[in-house]
Amino acid sequence: MFSLTVRDHMMIAHSFNGEIFGPAQGLHGATYVVDVTFERPDLDGNDLIVDIGQASDLLKEVISEFNMKNLDDLPEFEGRNTTTEFMAQVVFNRMAAAIHAGRLGEEGRQVAGLKVTLGESHLAWASYHAGI
Amino acid sequence: MFSLTVRDHMMIAHSFNGEIFGPAQGLHGATYVVDVTFERPDLDGNDLIVDIGQASDLLKEVISEFNMKNLDDLPEFEGRNTTTEFMAQVVFNRMAAAIHAGRLGEEGRQVAGLKVTLGESHLAWASYHAGI
Amino acid sequence: MFSLTVRDHMMIAHSFNGEIFGPAQGLHGATYVVDVTFERPDLDGNDLIVDIGQASDLLKEVISEFNMKNLDDLPEFEGRNTTTEFMAQVVFNRMAAAIHAGRLGEEGRQVAGLKVTLGESHLAWASYHAGI
Amino acid sequence: MFSLTVRDHMMIAHSFNGEIFGPAQGLHGATYVVDVTFERPDLDGNDLIVDIGQASDLLKEVISEFNMKNLDDLPEFEGRNTTTEFMAQVVFNRMAAAIHAGRLGEEGRQVAGLKVTLGESHLAWASYHAGI
Amino acid sequence: MFSLTVRDHMMIAHSFNGEIFGPAQGLHGATYVVDVTFERPDLDGNDLIVDIGQASDLLKEVISEFNMKNLDDLPEFEGRNTTTEFMAQVVFNRMAAAIHAGRLGEEGRQVAGLKVTLGESHLAWASYHAGI
Amino acid sequence: MFSLTVRDHMMIAHSFNGEIFGPAQGLHGATYVVDVTFERPDLDGNDLIVDIGQASDLLKEVISEFNMKNLDDLPEFEGRNTTTEFMAQVVFNRMAAAIHAGRLGEEGRQVAGLKVTLGESHLAWASYHAGI
Repeated sequence: MFSLTVRDHMMIAHSFNGEIFGPAQGLHGATYVVDVTFERPDLDGNDLIVDIGQASDLLKEVISEFNMKNLDDLPEFEGRNTTTEFMAQVVFNRMAAAIHAGRLGEEGRQVAGLKVTLGESHLAWASYHAGI
Repeated sequence: MFSLTVRDHMMIAHSFNGEIFGPAQGLHGATYVVDVTFERPDLDGNDLIVDIGQASDLLKEVISEFNMKNLDDLPEFEGRNTTTEFMAQVVFNRMAAAIHAGRLGEEGRQVAGLKVTLGESHLAWASYHAGI
Repeated sequence: MFSLTVRDHMMIAHSFNGEIFGPAQGLHGATYVVDVTFERPDLDGNDLIVDIGQASDLLKEVISEFNMKNLDDLPEFEGRNTTTEFMAQVVFNRMAAAIHAGRLGEEGRQVAGLKVTLGESHLAWASYHAGI
Repeated sequence: MFSLTVRDHMMIAHSFNGEIFGPAQGLHGATYVVDVTFERPDLDGNDLIVDIGQASDLLKEVISEFNMKNLDDLPEFEGRNTTTEFMAQVVFNRMAAAIHAGRLGEEGRQVAGLKVTLGESHLAWASYHAGI
Repeated sequence: MFSLTVRDHMMIAHSFNGEIFGPAQGLHGATYVVDVTFERPDLDGNDLIVDIGQASDLLKEVISEFNMKNLDDLPEFEGRNTTTEFMAQVVFNRMAAAIHAGRLGEEGRQVAGLKVTLGESHLAWASYHAGI
Repeated sequence: MFSLTVRDHMMIAHSFNGEIFGPAQGLHGATYVVDVTFERPDLDGNDLIVDIGQASDLLKEVISEFNMKNLDDLPEFEGRNTTTEFMAQVVFNRMAAAIHAGRLGEEGRQVAGLKVTLGESHLAWASYHAGI
């Protein structure tokens, strides 16, 4: 399997509900370093999985929905905790939908799987990985 | 699949038996940067794989058995070489047993797999990865 | 000159005032990876600058004042922008005061300078560096 | 599964054919940080996957074919784009052939899979991963 | 002293003249990870050294002169070796001139010093550091 | 000022004397990632500070005296604690002496300062920096 990863980041505020979160129940924030891995069994006619420039642009667009925001203000996350692992799946879903919609071109539809990793510090990170 | 990784480290002395080890047959040491990845197909009711704080505390406890020690002095490693890959499996086994014993709570028992990676330098690292 | 650096991190929410900040005028957040460097011309009788454990504990205590907080809620920052460079100086000031108060022991008073670096992402970081 | 990774690098020039590459159609270059992961279900009698020294030496030899070269000058790459993902497979193929030829000894033949990752910058990297 | 660093990268081809360079006398290439540090004794009225967005945009513009190029083709480098240390000074000079020309605004003229670091691999990097 | 840094590592065992060291009084070990920075006000006729290959070879030779050793066995360290900061100065002294002895050639004598940094983990590192 071939895979290609591109990196970007987003800076968000949020709070959590549930005793297990301790002081993280209060409003705080995070820089999420976001890595998106595109998997594909074969290369295209240009010897590419996807173009790094196009993939990076798409990732930047996807996370611009969250970057510099308070996630507590976004209606779609109501009733959920926007944990690192939860947000990894959210970015995964956005990326998968964009690829299905042709945002990486016809060749982009050959992407068979995605892995999205969000690093919240030098000590902890979380991923969501699945076929698309 | 969701996965969450937490990082800690341990500083140990040891020596190896076998010509293949060359100068590493003598007593030397290593800082092992230890990454433990918890895998789970679904999030719990708090939108968590496991709590980062609880996972980090458990990892620190598990590696405290080895940290600041000479591994050659530990009876359980007699007759074995405490290579990076071997120690990755040792930490894996300790973490898996602790999870089965309920150390990450009832929800922690939903962890389906673990990957333990020990980094011995900026140039080499080893892992053990399996279901639990 | 000898120097020793220890690393920790804090996760905060904040917003900025001023057109130059663009979308960062809204409430968002950051993980700050915090590196504190202790400078000293000579080692002490134990061949130490300061003890890594004591230095790390002091840093954790200092940043616990900000970790998991919304910096906009802290009265002392009223009228200021809690930029990365500004917060580097804030942590510097707290560390210097603690050292002067003897929190790293008598030997700790031999620390001649401090550098505090806050990393806000893989692409940007800021420092404050001065004698104490 | 056990895995061991060793790291080296190569510095190459090349150019690409195809409009999608934009300015990368011109002659430019890259430092590729090369990570090779060796996978094996069980450790050998020395508690090793493969010896780190032998694995590192083999990797250095394999990439010396490309290091400090203009890849456009190598006949075997004629008509192909030497993208990061393409070169990951090239290094994979060389490593797999060397292992099959016994370059990591009889025990080396127990290596069941390889993953080769080429990092082209702090923002993008590509891999090829398969059984051998 | 306050300092702020932003990171970008450029991918270039080049060759060197002189026996000391060995195989690097042939055409090869490098990814240079470029860090520019802006130094200033006091913060501005927004609590900034310089704006990270403006600094990053300026750096990208400066290195676009070299990115995706063969440095051997640039007349201004004729007779010089475009080593990592040499290119660090070249980027320094471009950044200093841009700041003097007001490209970071009036406040940007308060920048007292710059340090430019080019990383050519995980094992080697070079800097040029001076007042401006 | 120009500066060039090269990186290598050494893996050592040691123990410390003094209550302040707590569990580190027992025999343990460390991987030290060793960075040596060479400072020079001007480049040589090849546009170099020092040659990266020669500098790397010299560093490897210097640290081979300690790599894969128990530092407690080395008579020269008797009565001292081989802390990270102490060992940074030891490597500094070895490098400075080698440069003065002409091990980096006549041009190498133009090196005006050295900084040696030893990283003991992802959370702590120490340096010694001086003119030579």
